[in-house]
Amino acid sequence: MRLAKVSKNGITGLAVSNGDGIKAVFGDESLSDIDALIAKGGDSLQQAGARVAAEGEPVAEAELTFLPPLVKAPKIICLGLNYKDHAAEGGFQVPEFPTVFGRFNSSLIGHGAPIIKPPTSDQLDYEGEMVAIVGTAGKDIAKQDALSHIVAYSVFNDGSVRDYQLKTPQWTVGKNFDDTGAFGPWLVTVDELPAGGAGLKIETRLNGQVVQSANTSDMVFDVVDTVALLSTCFTLEAGDVLVMGTPSGIGLARTPPLFMKDGDVCEVEIEKIGLLVNPIKAG
Amino acid sequence: MRLAKVSKNGITGLAVSNGDGIKAVFGDESLSDIDALIAKGGDSLQQAGARVAAEGEPVAEAELTFLPPLVKAPKIICLGLNYKDHAAEGGFQVPEFPTVFGRFNSSLIGHGAPIIKPPTSDQLDYEGEMVAIVGTAGKDIAKQDALSHIVAYSVFNDGSVRDYQLKTPQWTVGKNFDDTGAFGPWLVTVDELPAGGAGLKIETRLNGQVVQSANTSDMVFDVVDTVALLSTCFTLEAGDVLVMGTPSGIGLARTPPLFMKDGDVCEVEIEKIGLLVNPIKAG
Repeated sequence: MRLAKVSKNGITGLAVSNGDGIKAVFGDESLSDIDALIAKGGDSLQQAGARVAAEGEPVAEAELTFLPPLVKAPKIICLGLNYKDHAAEGGFQVPEFPTVFGRFNSSLIGHGAPIIKPPTSDQLDYEGEMVAIVGTAGKDIAKQDALSHIVAYSVFNDGSVRDYQLKTPQWTVGKNFDDTGAFGPWLVTVDELPAGGAGLKIETRLNGQVVQSANTSDMVFDVVDTVALLSTCFTLEAGDVLVMGTPSGIGLARTPPLFMKDGDVCEVEIEKIGLLVNPIKAG
Repeated sequence: MRLAKVSKNGITGLAVSNGDGIKAVFGDESLSDIDALIAKGGDSLQQAGARVAAEGEPVAEAELTFLPPLVKAPKIICLGLNYKDHAAEGGFQVPEFPTVFGRFNSSLIGHGAPIIKPPTSDQLDYEGEMVAIVGTAGKDIAKQDALSHIVAYSVFNDGSVRDYQLKTPQWTVGKNFDDTGAFGPWLVTVDELPAGGAGLKIETRLNGQVVQSANTSDMVFDVVDTVALLSTCFTLEAGDVLVMGTPSGIGLARTPPLFMKDGDVCEVEIEKIGLLVNPIKAG
């Protein structure tokens, strides 16, 4: 099932996409509040989607505004240095444990919304990433159970303000500017994808030029490892968003560097999950 | 006003402390949900406190279980290296911009609850810190307006699992183990304290021995600087928790290192704000 949080004429709704097109129900928060559906657990998300598929009105994609699928994630856990070639391009060793920083919900935007280049920096960079969303809470989760804790996958552009990211030893500020974390458009439930979201082509394009191209199987810590290792430290909660790291090709590591500027368009596409497109706008 | 989220016989309540003792109202979530009161804004928190002061039942502190004052903070923003002598003891330069990492709400515990030493590490360390809580949202907040965005102060023990903190370039995992972020007991509204919470003695004691002793005026970036600088990057939201950094004296920097173990008791006390006491328990 492919689900999206959308709005049309200012009214929020849940959309479901299948081979026949898109259906949506608007104005019913019990369907459109994906944070609440995932927090409720069980198959609440799938049930909401089934209702929309059965009762929704057909809509054209062009009529819809796509919102970030979750906006109240208990944790947005971002992995750094999680593709070997990307760790190398930054001059980092491949870590022995997932390198993690936090994003705040306040940085999220949806598909189609502008990523804002802040007036204080000319170093706004792209990072195409796969997202795994925790559907069932757990602590000390065994590897063989890890994937049963994931409910869906999605696409993320971990927009990074590089000079702020590297001003101090911790990257958090440069990873949390308002309107830099693009997320969506679709949540794709696990039944539609290979186990762990593995083996999928992931590509980032800036103004149509391919700038990152890899496969989700190239991760250092895959979804199974990440769930198992992080849950030895803290409880993973329903609705936690795991942003699984970016492959090589970031703008900062290029000669000369390639940063995003007003008028650019950045696309992140993951095979079978979706295409996330955002224009860049000067703030 | 001094407010705390408490429970008695398993029922949650809001407590208010003044010179005459403590009063509390139990079982009314419109009073005890401090996250919601602060999110509502205006003087909702103070009004709830005034109602408890007028209508509450007198209670003895010993009858109460103290809960973390907030458990759904939109952001828990922790400052690192924010006292010069602490930056030096870690071998870091004093940064030119606040060094920030995120804590997740899932790591929080209240006054009196055990800080859990994880079975996977023997390097559980203390960090006594002052907390400032955002009461009014803002972006690009001018220095002269910064303190009008703060509603209250509190006390924090930023319990840190050092080997996990330093396993990778980012500290986030070691700062987010379950049951390591002790918070409270009291939120003290700004009217009761010096501007910016400045000039207050801050002391951490492990088993009665003073291990950190400083003054909140020794911060590199004070509350005014922090609000102004961070809000140039992202929106500060009502309920955001600013954990303002720790002075020198941490266990990791001692020879030999001093880590917390089962049976220890750690206290963080800030003049005029309160005393946060937590036993340490092996997990």
